[in-house]
Amino acid sequence: MATRKLKMGMVGGGIGAFIGPVHRMAATLDNQAELVAGCFSSDPKKSAAAGKAYMLNPSRVYQNYEEMIARELALPEDERIDFVSIVVPNVVHFPVAMAFLKAGFNVVCDKPMTISLAEAKKLKAQVEKSGKVFVLTHNYTGYPMVKEAKSVVASGKLGKINKIVVEYPQGWLAGLIESKSNTIAMWRMDPKVAGGSNCMGDLATHAHNLVRYITGLEISEMCADITSFIPGAQLEDDGNLLVHYDNGACGILHASQISAGEENPLKILVYGTRGGLEWRQENPNYLWLKDPAGTVTRYSRGNSNLCKAAQNNSRLPWGHPEGFIEAFANVYREAFKAIAAERAGKKIPAIDAPDVNDGVAGLAFIETILASAKSKSKWTKMKS
Amino acid sequence: MATRKLKMGMVGGGIGAFIGPVHRMAATLDNQAELVAGCFSSDPKKSAAAGKAYMLNPSRVYQNYEEMIARELALPEDERIDFVSIVVPNVVHFPVAMAFLKAGFNVVCDKPMTISLAEAKKLKAQVEKSGKVFVLTHNYTGYPMVKEAKSVVASGKLGKINKIVVEYPQGWLAGLIESKSNTIAMWRMDPKVAGGSNCMGDLATHAHNLVRYITGLEISEMCADITSFIPGAQLEDDGNLLVHYDNGACGILHASQISAGEENPLKILVYGTRGGLEWRQENPNYLWLKDPAGTVTRYSRGNSNLCKAAQNNSRLPWGHPEGFIEAFANVYREAFKAIAAERAGKKIPAIDAPDVNDGVAGLAFIETILASAKSKSKWTKMKS
Amino acid sequence: MATRKLKMGMVGGGIGAFIGPVHRMAATLDNQAELVAGCFSSDPKKSAAAGKAYMLNPSRVYQNYEEMIARELALPEDERIDFVSIVVPNVVHFPVAMAFLKAGFNVVCDKPMTISLAEAKKLKAQVEKSGKVFVLTHNYTGYPMVKEAKSVVASGKLGKINKIVVEYPQGWLAGLIESKSNTIAMWRMDPKVAGGSNCMGDLATHAHNLVRYITGLEISEMCADITSFIPGAQLEDDGNLLVHYDNGACGILHASQISAGEENPLKILVYGTRGGLEWRQENPNYLWLKDPAGTVTRYSRGNSNLCKAAQNNSRLPWGHPEGFIEAFANVYREAFKAIAAERAGKKIPAIDAPDVNDGVAGLAFIETILASAKSKSKWTKMKS
Amino acid sequence: MATRKLKMGMVGGGIGAFIGPVHRMAATLDNQAELVAGCFSSDPKKSAAAGKAYMLNPSRVYQNYEEMIARELALPEDERIDFVSIVVPNVVHFPVAMAFLKAGFNVVCDKPMTISLAEAKKLKAQVEKSGKVFVLTHNYTGYPMVKEAKSVVASGKLGKINKIVVEYPQGWLAGLIESKSNTIAMWRMDPKVAGGSNCMGDLATHAHNLVRYITGLEISEMCADITSFIPGAQLEDDGNLLVHYDNGACGILHASQISAGEENPLKILVYGTRGGLEWRQENPNYLWLKDPAGTVTRYSRGNSNLCKAAQNNSRLPWGHPEGFIEAFANVYREAFKAIAAERAGKKIPAIDAPDVNDGVAGLAFIETILASAKSKSKWTKMKS
Repeated sequence: MATRKLKMGMVGGGIGAFIGPVHRMAATLDNQAELVAGCFSSDPKKSAAAGKAYMLNPSRVYQNYEEMIARELALPEDERIDFVSIVVPNVVHFPVAMAFLKAGFNVVCDKPMTISLAEAKKLKAQVEKSGKVFVLTHNYTGYPMVKEAKSVVASGKLGKINKIVVEYPQGWLAGLIESKSNTIAMWRMDPKVAGGSNCMGDLATHAHNLVRYITGLEISEMCADITSFIPGAQLEDDGNLLVHYDNGACGILHASQISAGEENPLKILVYGTRGGLEWRQENPNYLWLKDPAGTVTRYSRGNSNLCKAAQNNSRLPWGHPEGFIEAFANVYREAFKAIAAERAGKKIPAIDAPDVNDGVAGLAFIETILASAKSKSKWTKMKS
Repeated sequence: MATRKLKMGMVGGGIGAFIGPVHRMAATLDNQAELVAGCFSSDPKKSAAAGKAYMLNPSRVYQNYEEMIARELALPEDERIDFVSIVVPNVVHFPVAMAFLKAGFNVVCDKPMTISLAEAKKLKAQVEKSGKVFVLTHNYTGYPMVKEAKSVVASGKLGKINKIVVEYPQGWLAGLIESKSNTIAMWRMDPKVAGGSNCMGDLATHAHNLVRYITGLEISEMCADITSFIPGAQLEDDGNLLVHYDNGACGILHASQISAGEENPLKILVYGTRGGLEWRQENPNYLWLKDPAGTVTRYSRGNSNLCKAAQNNSRLPWGHPEGFIEAFANVYREAFKAIAAERAGKKIPAIDAPDVNDGVAGLAFIETILASAKSKSKWTKMKS
Repeated sequence: MATRKLKMGMVGGGIGAFIGPVHRMAATLDNQAELVAGCFSSDPKKSAAAGKAYMLNPSRVYQNYEEMIARELALPEDERIDFVSIVVPNVVHFPVAMAFLKAGFNVVCDKPMTISLAEAKKLKAQVEKSGKVFVLTHNYTGYPMVKEAKSVVASGKLGKINKIVVEYPQGWLAGLIESKSNTIAMWRMDPKVAGGSNCMGDLATHAHNLVRYITGLEISEMCADITSFIPGAQLEDDGNLLVHYDNGACGILHASQISAGEENPLKILVYGTRGGLEWRQENPNYLWLKDPAGTVTRYSRGNSNLCKAAQNNSRLPWGHPEGFIEAFANVYREAFKAIAAERAGKKIPAIDAPDVNDGVAGLAFIETILASAKSKSKWTKMKS
Repeated sequence: MATRKLKMGMVGGGIGAFIGPVHRMAATLDNQAELVAGCFSSDPKKSAAAGKAYMLNPSRVYQNYEEMIARELALPEDERIDFVSIVVPNVVHFPVAMAFLKAGFNVVCDKPMTISLAEAKKLKAQVEKSGKVFVLTHNYTGYPMVKEAKSVVASGKLGKINKIVVEYPQGWLAGLIESKSNTIAMWRMDPKVAGGSNCMGDLATHAHNLVRYITGLEISEMCADITSFIPGAQLEDDGNLLVHYDNGACGILHASQISAGEENPLKILVYGTRGGLEWRQENPNYLWLKDPAGTVTRYSRGNSNLCKAAQNNSRLPWGHPEGFIEAFANVYREAFKAIAAERAGKKIPAIDAPDVNDGVAGLAFIETILASAKSKSKWTKMKS
């Protein structure tokens, strides 16, 4: 148990952003951290306005991240931020994270971690060199019932895993396909800001991380088919993969932003020789186990028949739904165990949260998709 | 928009409590308040331990609520708490709330508001006399899709409402029916702590409040059947009501703690001459509208086709589930509008949150149930 | 196994009727019976037209049921019908069934069996006196998963049953509430044709029969609230009951035709000391068992983990949905076991199908509802 | 409307078979046909026993299909069968169907139509030459809500179709993966009986047919990954396809028999530029339309807001579930329109049922899968 609140800094997350507020709510939900400093926009006026809205001391609201690092370092150690949360567009993850790590700060970073595998490996080297904490917010693994799913697979209850289907269809960009507008202003679709991938980097990486977390399996090779349905788009808005896993399992992984009418139904189905499981992000308080004898059993969050990790990552009793923010907060709560240790000069403990290796795996995944998509051969080996 | 965080005090909510942490998470979720003082247990040692765990200044952790009032009043006005959240057992709601109101503090109080209608009316008089803010945390009305339901009914889309079915079955006490243990230690089942009702005060009041919020209808008369299935229990653990509403609608309202295997599936169905609606607490991000022409349409939180209140009470986009804490936080966010105004010496605005009148209605409801349950006549008029 | 097809006669069920075709499809689904004779309408021309459409020999199509009895009796015994299915409006069930029984025919009759308890008792006396087979098509108990539910309760797995909620809301008459038309032509709403009850006789009797079948419990007393929302209607279109069962369980039973937007969602929830169950007619291939430890397990039709009755009443493997007609056919298939025995001069075996006693219980239920609805006392003892 | 019942013959479908009884129940459900002749097994004793159980005249129960053809032809034309239903193992479909066609009989045949594309084309030529009716029982297209889905796509309501996901996972063979038994006796897994494919021929062909029926789109190229997880199996038990359609849409089609715990959840999702749809075989009375504005609307069978084909293929009102047999019977009902015309010497009308062209498309699909599965190239053009 922490004896003081951790001091949080933020880069990105200005007024009107989506993921910035989620990070702030998640980090502070358990009263273990407070936002004390930040650089919230590349526009200094917007950064200042955000700092005011977030009720920060104006002296801790910065014009750019370089200034933030310099001025935080100039503060007495017990006033300075304990960690920074990086919630900028993809293309800036790498330089900001590198700079904070080099300056000796712990880092929580949104995903995808970088825009290239090469960058990802450099960041990994820097994390290892620095001895600082680095947590990547693949938030979906924070859900208690995802932890239960991992525990079920690890228990051997499903037998050997042979097939995995993981889906992440969204529909919010479908409307652009028939739009007369010639400008596609979204940063996610601009390679200069998002990197080499839109849909797969945004969504498929979550699906990939979810499979790895629950099953412990790694993709050995894949066959990718990606498409840009939006006229004039430089990046893909839909992608479908055939995959082979390192244990011989086969599977499907698909993601989309043009599946009109879908909201955020990330779903995973894992089938072993003795049973199957299903988890759905849009109804996340449950896990379904499928028994070949003819039953489907729904387990629900908040009960004592779940594994310790599922129990420890719940805040409410059964039947009182927890959601996206609480799952996100579970990632932060794990991060805080490591950050508190690091700040106290203790050995950093192993935690149940995605780290720089997951980030490297994610970029290897994206680059393999892009390579496979261009290849005329059926199978492309997973990069590493 | 607030320009400073409101200072929150708490009475009750020690380590291990259920609803205390919910109030703290809900109140601070949006960075508009911070816990600064409290009396967390009737046991001073436990109160102090809780204050430490919550990282409070020990000088603001009190041994009892009278001391808390006296010492907070002794602080300069800009340091003193702006409001107190009362999360003690039912029987103590009244004296604590009265004391804080009389001392000039704004109050957020858990439900049921008091243990008698007489107390409830006295509290109402005090609220009116004091000019302070009083909010009652009937949290289920904080869900965005409940607000959408209210808007749908108000729009007339369903026609005149003729039938309402509202259910709140739980099963967590079913195990006690066959338990060999002679002690029933739970405070909810002890009339000295819970008041004259267990199941109906705890659950049916939520169902009642939900109907009133969504439809604006009031029960005119009822027929109640309550039972204590648990051997030796002094208070009921199950109750079923036939109800008549003031517009001529009929309905059913039932609640239970011995419906084995149920978790927290509060559900409401409202039927008008032109359509019906359904909302379920365990899957709260959706509202179903039923059209006699043969369709059921699911509306989902986070979309722009919802009413303003539903939109304004969301924090996340579609498909990213919000839950119980977020709905609870919506009650607090409304309360803060009123409290901030009161503290600034401005006129207290009308807010979308349950108040002392809802508390009076709740106690009238409970007392009518208890009277009807004893009566041999079919119909008992609603008390007022 | 039958060695010849049984010969079926029908009274009622002309072209355009709802339940007549269901009886014909259900009776012939398993190739154990064939329609050979009938009187399909009180209008001889319509009866003849129906007989032609059903491809009957015109000599076996009759102008009224008295003629049908006389002329069938005049046929050689091996040509004559083995049983008659009665699918006329409620008010005519009694005279037709009595006449066929008195003439020595086996009878399958739609529900409610008669329009008064007195008639029901007379019919029961006649059945007993005649030694013929009488089956009442409370078809919902024909569903395999209803049989599984019965088996689960009987096994004691749920412990002692304490609460039962059974619902049967429909919405198809809601539109009449605001209709400008002054005529309500439907026979169901005409006391001269439907008897003393509309909604409760049509729907609540199914709910009542379902409870009795699954739990074996009988209502000891009830409190009924029935309403005619349709202007000018002589019979009720909505009804809500508080009920007490003979083992001390309590419950709710409600039915409606003005729950706008509902189709046919008959549903039952049974709660014991150790678990609960749920079955829904609109998704009938499943049964849900609720364990207080925190799981809900879905059992599905067609699997070998079900009771013999559930298995024997399935025609298809798991996952290939069976529906209303198949459940109805299960009632007929049981009836045929008894009818074949009777025709062969053997002892009539006990069968798993509703009989004249269920019909008497249904009429006692309806008359108790009507008495309770008029009473100012809370509880009305069940008639018998 | 037929004026006499059609006379049905059957080849295959002995006692204990799965699909034979389905054909018999489906064909006779609407009182438009009766089984009068058959050869039910390659074992004459079993054929005779089946004929007796089905209550046939022993003179119409044959020892083999050649005898059946010869002796039926020897009957007067008005006694002879009007059509034959072929429900033998896959490998025998072709010779039996060819023989009956050549002898001048109308044919209803189970799927897959043949075991090779070459056979399929020969059969098509024979059908065209013969002028007889040939219907292939891809029964899933008989569901009313599948017809509604087709109508919705045709209406343009979803815009241009860009993505299609169709899934058909079963789990019934998963247990064999760890089985110690060395024999895999099932005919489906024996190339000599099933042909070149097990899982894809049995399941994926239904998925393929469903897509073609609903969308009218044809696969232009595919990338297939098929696997035999069962040790010693000669045929695949799992398969995953990336597909491209002729309008530029992309998609996924997968089928499995080792997805442990799945029963028969054939499901299709179609996404256009303006909306999406979803249909699920295990809950077949509904169709879900997904609107990007934030609603999902469930349409249900039996309502007048559906297309004519959906209405005409229903037998029961809303809320009274229809299932697999009824959908199958819809295929037969369409077939009977054509067969009755053919028998009456009239022009055979266009009907809404799968025909020999669908059978050719199915075999082209299977052979393309097998070719793609062996290819190292990503894309394989659809055979034709």
